Order: sequence, then C-alpha cells, then structure tokens
Amino acid sequence: MNLYDDLVWHHQMPAQLRFSDVDRFGHMNNAVYFSIFDTFKMQYFREAIGNEFFHKYAIVMANLQADYLSPIYFPDEIAIQTAIIHLGNKSFTMIQRAINTRTKDIKCVCKSIMVTYDINENHSVAMPQEYKQRIMEFESNPGLCDK
Amino acid sequence: MNLYDDLVWHHQMPAQLRFSDVDRFGHMNNAVYFSIFDTFKMQYFREAIGNEFFHKYAIVMANLQADYLSPIYFPDEIAIQTAIIHLGNKSFTMIQRAINTRTKDIKCVCKSIMVTYDINENHSVAMPQEYKQRIMEFESNPGLCDK
Amino acid sequence: MNLYDDLVWHHQMPAQLRFSDVDRFGHMNNAVYFSIFDTFKMQYFREAIGNEFFHKYAIVMANLQADYLSPIYFPDEIAIQTAIIHLGNKSFTMIQRAINTRTKDIKCVCKSIMVTYDINENHSVAMPQEYKQRIMEFESNPGLCDK
Amino acid sequence: MNLYDDLVWHHQMPAQLRFSDVDRFGHMNNAVYFSIFDTFKMQYFREAIGNEFFHKYAIVMANLQADYLSPIYFPDEIAIQTAIIHLGNKSFTMIQRAINTRTKDIKCVCKSIMVTYDINENHSVAMPQEYKQRIMEFESNPGLCDK
Repeated sequence: MNLYDDLVWHHQMPAQLRFSDVDRFGHMNNAVYFSIFDTFKMQYFREAIGNEFFHKYAIVMANLQADYLSPIYFPDEIAIQTAIIHLGNKSFTMIQRAINTRTKDIKCVCKSIMVTYDINENHSVAMPQEYKQRIMEFESNPGLCDK
Repeated sequence: MNLYDDLVWHHQMPAQLRFSDVDRFGHMNNAVYFSIFDTFKMQYFREAIGNEFFHKYAIVMANLQADYLSPIYFPDEIAIQTAIIHLGNKSFTMIQRAINTRTKDIKCVCKSIMVTYDINENHSVAMPQEYKQRIMEFESNPGLCDK
Repeated sequence: MNLYDDLVWHHQMPAQLRFSDVDRFGHMNNAVYFSIFDTFKMQYFREAIGNEFFHKYAIVMANLQADYLSPIYFPDEIAIQTAIIHLGNKSFTMIQRAINTRTKDIKCVCKSIMVTYDINENHSVAMPQEYKQRIMEFESNPGLCDK
Repeated sequence: MNLYDDLVWHHQMPAQLRFSDVDRFGHMNNAVYFSIFDTFKMQYFREAIGNEFFHKYAIVMANLQADYLSPIYFPDEIAIQTAIIHLGNKSFTMIQRAINTRTKDIKCVCKSIMVTYDINENHSVAMPQEYKQRIMEFESNPGLCDK
C-alpha cells in the first residue's frame, strides 16, 4: 500500500464533517469520503487552473482506488490533501488523503484517474497544454507530463 | 414570514458546502439544508450543554418549518446561526438561519420543534432542569422556560 | 396536526432506503426524508404533466412544513404518497406522506409550497394553464385552482 | 480492466435513484455509487448469511477499486449485482456492478476488500466458519475459501 508519504502537498484544506456522515457504528460512512474528496478536487482545480476551465470542460472519473487505514469519527478534525502526480494525454492521476490534523494519522488514501471532457462537443479530450502548464507550476513539478 | 431579525445569535458557524450538494440547476438541494442544520444543532448542544448529554439522551425532531428565501450556489460563503427560543416541558423550539456571510442575505430560516429522548428507557422525557439552565445561560435569556 | 387522512392518493411509490440514510441511533436521518420526497415530487410531475415541462421550467421550493410521527428504521418498507391540493397563481401546494406499507403507520407528513420558475427568463412565473389542467385531471379534482 | 463478465450473479436488485444523486451535468455523482453499493452489500449479507451476523459483527471496508465505464443519468433503470469471489482468513473480496437493465450496459465495476470486525471486542477477526459456509452455499462455489 502506497501512502504517498514522500509527496509535497501544495493543497490541504480542512473538511467539515456532518452529523449525517456517520453510520450506526459511529464511523464516517465509506461513501462520504468520496463526496468530500470530490469537493476538494474542485477546489484544487479552481486554485490551480482557475474557474474558467469549467466553462468549457468537465472532469470525469474513470477509475479510483482507495485504502481505508482507520475510521473517522464525528467530529474528528480532518483535512484533505490533494495533488496531481501525473498528466497523461487525455487522463491524469490525482492523489488525495484524509488526515487527522491533531494526531497526524492518515485515515484514507485515494488515487483517482480522471479525464477531461469537452462539455459542448460531448466527448473526452486532451487537457489543453496551458492548463497542464498551470498544474505543473502549482505542483512546482515540471516533470508531471508525459513526453 | 418571520425572519427572526430581532434575535441575538450566540451561535454562528461557517458551513462548508460540498460539490454534491448542488442539483442540476446549480442550486443547493433542498434536503441538504437540513443535513447542514442538523450538524450545527449538534454543535450547539455540545457547546451549550456539553457532550455528556448525549450519553443518556438523544434529540428527536417532531416538527420543522422552513422558508427558502433565495438559492445557495456552490461555493457561496454560508454560515449557520442557531438559537433556542423556547423551552417547554418535553419539547423545545430552535431557530436556524442560513446566511451568506459576504452579502448578509438570509437564504433560509428554519424553525424546528424537538423532543428529548431517553436512550435507555426508550421514550421521550422532559429535558432535565440543569440542561435547561445551561441553555438559558448560553442564550443569556432566563425567560426561555415555561413557568 | 393535519394527517390528510381524507385525501385520495393518486400517486404512491415504494421508496428504497439506503444504509447510509440511518444515523447512529438506527433512525432514518431527518434530512433524508426530503431527499426522498424530492425524488417522488419529480416522478409526480413526470407522470402528471410530462417531461417536457422541465425543458422550460423548474420547480423551486418556497416553504415546507413537516411533522415526524414515528421513526423509520432501515430496512422498513416505506412508500411515499404525493398529491397537489391547491394551485394558486404562481405557487402551488403539495402534500407528501411517508407510510410504512406493512403496518400502515404514517411516519411523516410534509406540506410544501412551491413556485414555477422559468429557466430561460430566470424568474418565477405562473404555471401555464395547460399544466394546471393536467394536474387537475391527474388528481380528478377540478376544484384545485384559485378562481 | 476486469468486467467480471464470467461471474454468475446470485444477487441482483434494482436501485432506486434519487433526484439529489445527480450533479450539475446531469450525471450520477461518483460518491453516490458507493452509497448504493453499500446498501446492496448489506442486503447481500442479510440474504446470504442472515441478520444475526450483525448482532455481533460489523463489516469494515479496507480497500476499494472502481472503474467507471459510462455515466448514469436520472432516472435510468439501474440494478446492482453483488458477489463474493474470495474468502480469506480475516478479509474477503466482493465484486459489485451497476448495470442498466434496459440496455444491459455495465456502468461501473467495483472490487472491494472488507474485514470482519467484532463489535464487542473492538478488533478485526476471522469470519466464523459457519458464515463462510453459508456464503459458499449462496454462491454455489465451494472453492471460495483459502485452504
């Protein structure tokens, strides 16, 4: 299991848990993690490449893999870390982690592969080079792109 | 429609919206308001009367009334205001408002009537007087209780 | 409290509960009721007045009032009853009930006042007369409209 | 990508979509899939091994992997297929698919690794042999278990 402990996180934000996120065992529900990851995925894109991206494109999930390390209880102090680790031609790869900001425990690690989707033309497209550039700058990592 | 503009709010907290809260028209979904109100209801009770209340009691919703004044969009800056305005024998009345903290617009006003429920004995009970006392102190309002 | 026991229900559909609908006390969460009511509100409109309504109009919630009579547990057999009881000029009034189809218990009664919204012109409008007509036919009640 | 087309599905149930499941692009939200999968995971266990399992044990998610093949729209006719394909010592592996029952399209395939958790002793345990036996009978597959 890869915890991505070596990554430098340029995007971390606190997540506000809701009372309804918790199941009958007092644990945060499995599905809620993805609703929270999704929210910070959107924040990441707003900050890294700007809002105007979403006037023309959408982001579509192709694959995700998540490891649950230990349960989250309401109202734990949780933050979400988000990074892009690879920019392919049409697809790119994002890592997100839920961490307890008090204990520093990693609660969940999620790797997702997403695709840029042209809203008007209704099919997946390569992410325009200028947006890839902004992501590489945001991550301070010029090597994110496939050659 | 009562906007409760004359209330002094002793409990106000920012609400974090989620991308999944928004429907296909870009508006925050009707049902999500109550999930958010619920979360801050719990925070209110933790702060006003303490966590130990929930070891023995639960709060059960009996009635709610909500007025939607204008839509919330993701990611508007929203805060939730919470106050108790009446402590009856078994039931009590809470007002919650969703406000836009930037524009000061009131988005939604919700009045709910709730009942204290004894988890072990499995029926509704009068809220113990010490908890009523703490709520009156929290609200700086000794007149909340029925005589 | 009005249980609307005298209404003839022309729209009733079973609701599928989700494991995540349940809170830590095993009760269906307050907010989930509205998510379920919303779903059958849409089904009602599809069946009573047809899909094409939603190409031009949206339905916006103005006010709702709900009475919770007894808790729902997962996986209770629940159905939702939906009826329109009044068609005003711009607003109309809908009643929805969650009932246990095995025990016939009424779990929750919700009265909501909604407004027709013109998506293109971006403001509330009177519901076109032909749609009002279809609703009156669906409800077999020619007296729903304001004179 | 493994679509598990060779599996014989002994558990398939229709899923009821909710209006709030849909995002602003009209697509079912990524996170909602897991809330629906979770619901049918519970139904599977009720049917395959019985309710009494949950008096003593809980099921905890350790890892999941999902492939999204094409979007789901409200109100598509969706069913969820569920099977266990491996019973290890403490962990076991479940496959779930969301399919469109009209077009037969596979919408999403999810593989999850879960662990049996003893609620009273508060740690993961091996699933008792009698429950493994019932699952093998339910799946008509005596070879599910590790030797």
